This record gives sequence, C-alpha cells and structure tokens, in this order.
Amino acid sequence: MFQSFEVTARPEQGPPRLAALREQMVQEGLDGFLIPRADAHQGEYVAARDERLAWLTGFTGSAGFCAALRDVAGVFIDGRYRTQVKAQVAADFTPVPWPEVCLSAWLKQQLPNGGKIGFDPWLHAAGQISGTLSDLEGSGIELVRCENLVDRIWADQPAPPMNPVKAHPIEFAGEGADSKIARLAEDLRRAGHKAAVITLPDSIMWLLNIRGSDIAYNPVAHGFAILHAGGQVDLFMAAEKLAGVRDHLGSQVTLRAVGDFLDAVAALAGPVQVDAASVPQIVADALGDAMTDGGDPCALPKACKNAAEIAGSAEAHLRDAVAVIETLCWLDQQAPGSVTETQVVTRLEENRRKDNALQDISFDTIAGTGPNGAIMHYRVTEETDSRLEKGHILVLDSGGQYLDGTTDITRTIAIDDVGTEEKTCFTRVLKGMIAMSMLRWPAGLAGRDIECVARVPLWSAGQDFNHGVGHGVGAYLSVHEGPQRLSKVSHVPLQPGMILSNEPGYYREGAFGIRIENLVVVEDAPLLPGGDAERAMLNWRTLTYVPIDRRLIMADMLTTDERDWLNAYHRDVAEKIRPRLGHDAQLWLDAATAPI
Amino acid sequence: MFQSFEVTARPEQGPPRLAALREQMVQEGLDGFLIPRADAHQGEYVAARDERLAWLTGFTGSAGFCAALRDVAGVFIDGRYRTQVKAQVAADFTPVPWPEVCLSAWLKQQLPNGGKIGFDPWLHAAGQISGTLSDLEGSGIELVRCENLVDRIWADQPAPPMNPVKAHPIEFAGEGADSKIARLAEDLRRAGHKAAVITLPDSIMWLLNIRGSDIAYNPVAHGFAILHAGGQVDLFMAAEKLAGVRDHLGSQVTLRAVGDFLDAVAALAGPVQVDAASVPQIVADALGDAMTDGGDPCALPKACKNAAEIAGSAEAHLRDAVAVIETLCWLDQQAPGSVTETQVVTRLEENRRKDNALQDISFDTIAGTGPNGAIMHYRVTEETDSRLEKGHILVLDSGGQYLDGTTDITRTIAIDDVGTEEKTCFTRVLKGMIAMSMLRWPAGLAGRDIECVARVPLWSAGQDFNHGVGHGVGAYLSVHEGPQRLSKVSHVPLQPGMILSNEPGYYREGAFGIRIENLVVVEDAPLLPGGDAERAMLNWRTLTYVPIDRRLIMADMLTTDERDWLNAYHRDVAEKIRPRLGHDAQLWLDAATAPI
Repeated sequence: MFQSFEVTARPEQGPPRLAALREQMVQEGLDGFLIPRADAHQGEYVAARDERLAWLTGFTGSAGFCAALRDVAGVFIDGRYRTQVKAQVAADFTPVPWPEVCLSAWLKQQLPNGGKIGFDPWLHAAGQISGTLSDLEGSGIELVRCENLVDRIWADQPAPPMNPVKAHPIEFAGEGADSKIARLAEDLRRAGHKAAVITLPDSIMWLLNIRGSDIAYNPVAHGFAILHAGGQVDLFMAAEKLAGVRDHLGSQVTLRAVGDFLDAVAALAGPVQVDAASVPQIVADALGDAMTDGGDPCALPKACKNAAEIAGSAEAHLRDAVAVIETLCWLDQQAPGSVTETQVVTRLEENRRKDNALQDISFDTIAGTGPNGAIMHYRVTEETDSRLEKGHILVLDSGGQYLDGTTDITRTIAIDDVGTEEKTCFTRVLKGMIAMSMLRWPAGLAGRDIECVARVPLWSAGQDFNHGVGHGVGAYLSVHEGPQRLSKVSHVPLQPGMILSNEPGYYREGAFGIRIENLVVVEDAPLLPGGDAERAMLNWRTLTYVPIDRRLIMADMLTTDERDWLNAYHRDVAEKIRPRLGHDAQLWLDAATAPI
Repeated sequence: MFQSFEVTARPEQGPPRLAALREQMVQEGLDGFLIPRADAHQGEYVAARDERLAWLTGFTGSAGFCAALRDVAGVFIDGRYRTQVKAQVAADFTPVPWPEVCLSAWLKQQLPNGGKIGFDPWLHAAGQISGTLSDLEGSGIELVRCENLVDRIWADQPAPPMNPVKAHPIEFAGEGADSKIARLAEDLRRAGHKAAVITLPDSIMWLLNIRGSDIAYNPVAHGFAILHAGGQVDLFMAAEKLAGVRDHLGSQVTLRAVGDFLDAVAALAGPVQVDAASVPQIVADALGDAMTDGGDPCALPKACKNAAEIAGSAEAHLRDAVAVIETLCWLDQQAPGSVTETQVVTRLEENRRKDNALQDISFDTIAGTGPNGAIMHYRVTEETDSRLEKGHILVLDSGGQYLDGTTDITRTIAIDDVGTEEKTCFTRVLKGMIAMSMLRWPAGLAGRDIECVARVPLWSAGQDFNHGVGHGVGAYLSVHEGPQRLSKVSHVPLQPGMILSNEPGYYREGAFGIRIENLVVVEDAPLLPGGDAERAMLNWRTLTYVPIDRRLIMADMLTTDERDWLNAYHRDVAEKIRPRLGHDAQLWLDAATAPI
C-alpha cells in the first residue's frame, strides 16, 4: 500500500459522464445538480466510492465542487488548485474561482429566470445549504433534495469501505471512553441539551477510543453517533466492521445499523446539539426545530491532548525522525541529477515502514524539486516526476501514522551548491519559524493573534506566503485537525495540549519553493523572574527533531538569539536521535548538527 | 486656559444628589435610572453640562455609567478605572467591574421580580439599547424612555456650550467640503440609501471643513447633520455659533435649528444610513423602519488623510517637537527632587503655547513619576502632585491641537541614575516600538493582525501591557479617532493615509511605568528588489521627532537592526529639529541624539 504515483483521472473521462448525468437531470426535471468533493463526513479525504467529483470531472483536488447545469458545468476550485484544474478537466467544464465567486452568485448569473438545482442532502452541510438558500432568495432558483444522480450512472462505483475497527489502547489514549463520554454528557446537561449528533469520524474515533481504516491516511471508520445527555452512546456503523471491538465498546455504547440513523435522529427530543458547519442537511431535516448549533462536542476536548497522547506523540516523532534522517543521509550520498522525486518518496516510505508501529503514511508525501517546490500541494506522478538537479532545492513534506501519534514534517534540502537567492529566502523562512518556536504569549490568545510572528522576516523583504502558518494535528488521527490553527481565521484560544504545525514557507512560481515545518505542543510557560506574576502565559514544546539544512542558512542574517536557538535545537536532535541511527547516518547527523 | 490640577469632584457630593434623584424616580414610578458618562454625541470628552456621571457620583473617568436603583447604585467602570473609582465615590455607590458584568446581568440580579428602568434616549446609542433589551427578554425588566432626571435636579447645571465655529482652511483640509459631500453622496446612492444621519461632531467638522470649541481639547462644535443622497446637507446647530461661517458653508448646506432635528429625521424616506453603535436611541425611534446600520459615512474617508493633511501633520509634529525638547532640556537642568509633576505639565504647556498655531493641548497631559507612572490614565492633581526623585522614571504623555495637525507623544525620562530593572523593561518596550516602526506588511491586514509585533519582546520576558498598541489620530480633530486602531479588536484594514499611534508600554503597580509613543502614518511601501512583484505592501512613515532617552537603553539588548533604526531616528531628529531650537536645547539635543 505504498504511495501511488499513478495519474488517477484523465480530462477525457469527463464529457461522456457529464452527458449521462445531464440525461438524468432532464429525466428528474432538474436544471442542474451539485457534485461536491465532500462525503457525508465532510473530511479532507474520501473513500473511493465518494470520489464523485474526480470521477465526473477529472479534477482530483481535496476541496471544491461541480455545479452541472444543462449547458454549462462550473468546477469551483480555491487558490491552491487554479493551475491543476486546467490540466485535469476537459473544455466541457468551466473552472470558477472560489470562494471569490460563490455558488449562489454563479447560479444567479447562469439562470436569470430561475431553475431547480438538485443536491444530495447527505453530502452538503446544513450551514452551507442555509447560507446558499438565503443568498438565492428572490432569484427563482430552488435547491431540491434528490437521490445522488452520479451514483445512478456510475456503473462500477466501488462499494463503501468495510474495514475492521480496532480498539485504541488506553496506554495511547490516556483516558477511557467511559470517562470521555461522562464528561461530554455532563457538558450537554450543563448546556441544557438532550443529545448531540456526531457525524465527524475522527470525533467518533476519539470519543470511543477506536480506530478504523476506511479511508487513506486517516485511521477512521465511517459511521455516525448520538451522544445522549444521560451518558449513553448510539453508534451507527456496519456490524461487520465492529466484530473486534464489541467488548471494548462496553454497555454504554449501543451498536445500531447505519440504516436506522435517520429514524433515530428524528426520534430525538430537543434541543439536540450539532455542528452546523459539518452536519449533513438530511440530518438537519430529520431534527427540524430540535436542532441547535453548539459545535461538535468532541472538537475541543480532542484538540487538547492529555499527558499520554503528548508523550506518545513525542515518542512517535523520535522514531519518525530516524526514518527522515536516514533518508536525508541517503539523499546526500546520491550524485545530483541521479535520483527523482518518486525515488525520494519511495525511499522515505520504506524507511518509515521499518518501524513496526507505522500504520500508514499520514498524507501523500510532497516531494517537489526546483520549480515543482513552488506548487504548494504538489503530488508527484509518473508524468511530473523530476530529477533532483544540482542547484535545486527540494521541498520534502511527509508524515506517518503511528499507534502512538501522528507526524508531519517538512524539510527543504539543498541539492549540492545552491544560489544565494534561495539561501536568503530560506534564511528568512527559518527566522520566522524560529521566532514562532521561541514565542511565549499570554493565555487567551488565538492563532490569529500570533501568526504574523512567523511572517515578519519575509514581510521585511517584501515577501509572504499564501497559506496559514500552522494547522492542528491529531493524536493518531487526522493530520489536519481543528479547531486550533495558526491562521488569520482562527479565533479559538490556544490551550495547553494542543498540537500544531509551525510551517512558514516561501514560493517563487516557476523557480523554487521553501517550507520548514516542526510540530509543536502548547504548554503552560514557566514563570520567569521579573515576569508579571498574575499573567498566565503559554509557550511551545517542540516535538519534531530533524536537522534543518545548514547549507541553506546565511548565518550572518541570524541574530544571536536565533543562532542560539538553532544550535540548541541541533544539539537536542543529536542527543535524542543519534543513538537510534545506523553508522552512516550518525556521521551524517554529526555534520548536519554541528554548531553554526 | 491652562490644564487644571483641581480636584473637580468629591465623594461626599454624591449621596445627597443620589437621594434627590431617587425622589424623582419614585415620583415617575421608576425602579431605576441610567446615568451614562456619554452625551448625545458619544465622544470621549463631554461639555460641563453633560458631566452628569461625575456630578452625581464623583467618578470622573472618561467612560462608564451609573445604574441608580431605589436601594443600590452601581457604577460600571472598566479595567483602567478600578482603583480610581474607589477613591472617588462614596459608599452609597457600588463599583461594578464592566464589561465583565454587563448592565442586563446586573439588573436581573438586583431586580429578580422585574422593574422599570428609565433612560434618556438622547444619551444612549441605539445599538446599546437593542443589545440590552434582547438580554433582558423574559426578565420582566423594562427600559423606559424618559426625561433626564439628573438635569431636573441639577440646579446649577451649566448651559450648553455656544462657542463660535470657524472655517477650516483648504490649505489644511486638502479637499473642499463640496468635494467631500459629492463623493459621500455618491457612496449613499451606490448603496441605495436616501440619506445618512450624522451625529458624531468630528464627522460633521470633517465633512464641512469647519472647527469648533464646544468641548475641551477637541476642536468640534455640537450639532447634527443629515447628508442627502442628492448632495445636500442639513446642519442642525445653534445659529449663534455659525455667524462666521455662513459664506464658507455655501448653498449646499442648509442651516437649521437643533430643535427641528428630530422632526426632520422623522420626515426622511428610507433607507437612511446611521451608525447604530453611536446614533442616539431617540434618532432611531424617529427613523423607525427607515433606519439601516451602514456606519458613519465619514468615518473611513476621514481616517484616510490626504496629502495636505499629512503634510500639515508632519509640520505640526516638527513644531510640537520643539516644545517637548525644550521641556526635556529644562527638566535635565533641574536637580532631582526639585520639581513636581504639575511643574513639568505647566512648563510643557507654556512651551507649546509659544507656537502661535497652537489652539489647545490635545488632552490632559499625563505626567506620572515613579509609582504614578504605573497609573495608565494618571491625571495629576494638587493632591497627588509628586516630586521627580532621583531614580524615578517619568512617563510624559501629551499633545497639541494645531491648525495643521493633532499631536500625541509619550516619552519616558530617567531622573538621574535609574535601576537596571527599569532600564531592562524600558529596552523591551523600545524593542517592541522599533519592531512596529520597522514593520512592512501586506495590504489588507487590520490592526489586530499585526499588533503583537510590538509585544513580543515583553512576552519573551513574561511581561505585557493592558492597553492597545495604538489608536487612530485625527487631522486637527480628535486625538482618539476610529476606525483604525492597533488593537486586537480592530478588524478594519489599514489604508494609506491613516495616522495612528505606536505606543507600547509596561506598568509595574506601585513601582514605575513606561510608555514610548510616536505617531506614524500608513504609506504604500516601495517595491523591494527580490520582493514579490504582485504583493502590495504597506509601511509606516514616522511623524514624531523627539529623542528617546538613551540613558534608559541597555544597548546590548538591541539587535544590529534595532540599533541602526534608533541611530537613524536620532540622526533624523537632529537634522529636522536642531535648527529650530535655542542654544541650550541644541547642546542638549546633540548629546541626546548621539549614536549608541
């Protein structure tokens, strides 16, 4: 199950499928149909059977949707995918820059006399539908719930995944499911809510201390849950997945068929807490007035890792570092121009797989050399695979799913001699990454209040990067986890135990890319002599221990504090990782962690 | 009209007045009455006749309100005034920490069986009343519009101010009133609004290029205006104030009696744009359904200064610097322990008054030595006046209103030898102030996205300060002006021409205070070689040129960049200001601006 470099979709597949879809639309009396990338669980990854957007259009990005009308089909894609979409879809599809152009505005333009647009109420969040409906008011355009028309024409659509669920041991989870259920039920009672409907798979996995493998890279199983304020949980999941965890789940958890889910929801007395941003419209329909938008009750407790989860993550990172360092050592032994991006990806995955605890990689490794490094979400394929040439810099962004933790690390690597411009930009990114690493800040602030700290060195040179500074990371769960983020849109206060990435970057289109990423965990900062006694402050503890390429650093651009941080970091890397390495890698590490 | 050091209110004045107010409440069948600090224009300063809160309670702070019930009277004060209120009000009044405790929550606690609370609908903003009403739903507590009961019992209440209005010359305003009216009327038409009601005096002054002197330190006249989408303005202001500006106002502006204002508002066809956060409830009542909350149409255009306003402000700052530097030179010539805070304030004001363009100081000078420096909004009185002792540091925060601009500057000054702790903290504040001064940032960001830059050096030592980094400043208008702010609550993107303060500080209660403040103006940043070509960026130009006390700087705590900035700043100070100084001050300046 190694990472595939296959080209999974072709532009030419789209037009005949679009034609077939339009026949169905006519038959149903619809003027259009919506095909989102999302499944019923609104996650970043979907199962093969839910790849409806890619199947229909050829576009394989991780976000977006198609609005297929009778004579035009808009493919709505965000800033990350503007180039990719052009290469992936046929001329029958019209790329629409989203969210700059929103669905309702586009529909109003295309259908000035109104019309009926069908949608599958399982695949759209209630918040999304209600927002679109209110934008469409007075336009004569209706949104009509209907059967999924893509599923009807997709002859060889894969079956839903049916992989076994495993118990997640208490030594890694750190808190029993009974305890989690009890404190969340208490939260519901305090809020006056009778129950909560949970549709996000990672929330269900966390709550019940189970893990699955229904989708790539994410140890989750598809299903739904109802948490009752009395402390009982109904789990709606295919029985065949659950054979191994019946005892583990215990008497608090009632196993029920997925087909019973909507009836069970409809029978609930309100108020019932949901996360309107992710709950399917069909669930909102079943709840009616009983629904109240209180967010997913698991989101914040899951984000604040306990001591066992943090210790597990730290240990997973040490083992993961061995795989990355062995790979970097190997790479340095290869002559420039002799290896390609896919070879690096494969080698790195091989090294990770030497660790028995590895369950999977945590996402498709991004290995972009030279100009490919400037494509933020680059996934190398057989067709784009490029040689690492002398003078290139390589962006290598990867991670592993271990039983004790999830990792995500990016290093940017010099291929032999590299130009001054690359080094200067790299050093600015490094200065930002160090500034964030060293930051201590008053408790109560959110990601948006501090994220600029990692950008200031780039700003001072008239540069910046078009992604957030960091995202939340789960504990052997999703590598992208909310609500914690280092981003301008994140207003949730950072709290001890939250794991985030710290990953500033810089991208010059057609030339090179740079990103440096460590995972860090929020901790209470110790009181400092002379510090304000009454002021609670937080700081980061670093989890990732892999050298930062010294060959790319312009040492005279660093302040004394920055240089001290880097040398101390490399000292820690050597101390923690050297004993775990083979002989060659030990020698490589000694050079890579020498003080500057 | 020099700054007064008088104690203007006494705790003992409160109880008999409260008793008289309660008689009126009983007579009107009310269970309570609200007494805000605000007047009908919701500004920071009020006229003597509007000092109802101070008159009733003794509390003289610039924000807050009293909720007088039959057996308890809460005085709601924010974090800045928690100490001050205790000294200023008698035991009959109960300080309430606000906004932690909001009015509605407090009323529900005091009146569990409901009741009728009177309020003067001129003195409360519509947004405030609607928020309180929705919080009070179901509590049985009603808010009842009524005559002002304080005015009824305040026998010697001063008359409303009736000071003459003057034209603000085009050489300072930079844009004619006709042009401003035309472009704001065009904005209204584009928004589909028929008119806007403007109740903020500085907006009216800006729009019509006039200035008044109805309240201290703010060159504004009280009045109201209606801007019609057709480009006509109705100005509701006492005719006796306007004798000198009838020609200046021209035919586009119709002068009307203040008494006609509400009828004129009620006669408007909707939609009528108002700023719900500041429009009096009585105006909202008159508008009814015609009202739409689109903000004050002058706020943003006024905040973005034109070339003439920026040039005027720069020139005003150069002249203002002379007064400050002459004062600092004089201060250094005095033996420690020989002068007091009030003497510094008076000397500084005398020096400012040597400039014929000075119209007024722009606020009560804050001169806090030693422990008094830790009181952020310290106003020295005869009773608190303290000597500047050896080892003290003095916070000196002051400004002037000149025809060509408004200034606001803080310097922290060493009195002879000062301890290492003070110097260390001062240097951290300076590092933050320099970091903000040097900042270049992408266009589109708001104050909240960058303000932490000025805090990071303090954070790293476990310290912080409890106020924003900066506020907007007007062009010969209010020294505190929105919507631009360097604050966590400011989401309005910074734009070229906005003038703000950059004023980090540090306060150690009972020991000392530190603040360093320059005014800065937002400018388009020049493209840098190697910078992102398509990325518009902004930076600051400094307006304030007065030395920063070198005796308080721990030079080895500064990076090379910080040291370079400081030396370059001092070089500019010397170059710009030295030619304007007397001989003694020139010698003083040479030493004060020597490189470190």
